[in-house]
Amino acid sequence: MLSTTPRTTLGREKQRAATDRAELYEVLDSALICHLGVVRDGHPMVVPTGYGRIGETLYVHGSTGATSLRSGQGAEVCVTVTHVDGIVLARSIFNHSFNYRCAMIYGTARPVTDPDEHLEGLRALSEHLAPGQWDYTRRPTRKELAATSVLALPLEEASVKIRRGAPGDDDADYALPIWAGVLPVVTGFGPPVPDPVLPEGTAVPPHILNRR
Amino acid sequence: MLSTTPRTTLGREKQRAATDRAELYEVLDSALICHLGVVRDGHPMVVPTGYGRIGETLYVHGSTGATSLRSGQGAEVCVTVTHVDGIVLARSIFNHSFNYRCAMIYGTARPVTDPDEHLEGLRALSEHLAPGQWDYTRRPTRKELAATSVLALPLEEASVKIRRGAPGDDDADYALPIWAGVLPVVTGFGPPVPDPVLPEGTAVPPHILNRR
Repeated sequence: MLSTTPRTTLGREKQRAATDRAELYEVLDSALICHLGVVRDGHPMVVPTGYGRIGETLYVHGSTGATSLRSGQGAEVCVTVTHVDGIVLARSIFNHSFNYRCAMIYGTARPVTDPDEHLEGLRALSEHLAPGQWDYTRRPTRKELAATSVLALPLEEASVKIRRGAPGDDDADYALPIWAGVLPVVTGFGPPVPDPVLPEGTAVPPHILNRR
Repeated sequence: MLSTTPRTTLGREKQRAATDRAELYEVLDSALICHLGVVRDGHPMVVPTGYGRIGETLYVHGSTGATSLRSGQGAEVCVTVTHVDGIVLARSIFNHSFNYRCAMIYGTARPVTDPDEHLEGLRALSEHLAPGQWDYTRRPTRKELAATSVLALPLEEASVKIRRGAPGDDDADYALPIWAGVLPVVTGFGPPVPDPVLPEGTAVPPHILNRR
């Protein structure tokens, strides 16, 4: 079950709340990036960044984000991951919406200092981006590792909000001669584009060719 | 030209900064949602939401977001709009990246109280979602307007960061027998899905059928 703290309990559209941890994992594992929110000098700052998950922990790059994170102490963050699945076209402007799946995670981001966890966090980030690349490409050197900070965020205080399906119109509006429905938003991968300086004939590895 | 305040001047990857307002508009006008960051009870909160643009002003729904916004006073926000265009697959883990276009806008969100601007803001939100729907579907009633708050954010303090093209690897790594390149991320619309209760034969209007 997901937590029910005041800030993860939905104030609006409560029927859209998902309460199963499996739904949280599904939303996180199938997206490419998150939006990391921090408070910097008293104002909000939202940066897109990659992430990876190992069990109950989310790993994000630490170089993005708040000064307080870079200085090594933990900081309050909000990580939001959103899939836009469709545009909900209702009979009234008022009932227009999106179909979406959104996870929000609150917590204190801990800078990862243990060398083993640091490497595992980077591996999770890499495998989230493109599964198979960790074993296929050149691993980080000691110098590169030192230049890459990783933050760990426990998946303790999280909410998931999902909207699926047809528009919900006001009763009287169903009689209107207006087309209503959903325009699906589809995201996928195009054919791999080789680096122009790649030696001719270098084969695209199967884990890239078949990335879903 | 875009602003160059301390928080819109990139600390890292300066070569990725775009400085043209046209690029800001392009990033904003071609995305579907933004991530709105606010400070709520001292902690960051990031919510996905729709938006629209009229000239130098961004309009977002006010019902999402901070308590301070709902109470009617302006609040510091950060609005981030991100397109993920590709996964950059380098020869080393360290040089992996995303191709992306990202706009960040800082400012004080002003609750819109003028009835004309309120309606124009909603129209911009609606037309951003699906151009043509404002004239095609039922317009908001007075009661619906009262239930929909709109925030205005000036496009004054903004930054745009863009990464395009092939991976940038370390000189020595180009000799490695590793495929490198970009896996494009493609987002588009699927065929419209009619509301199941729609009378048979209701035609999909051209502005939905041809939405790009």
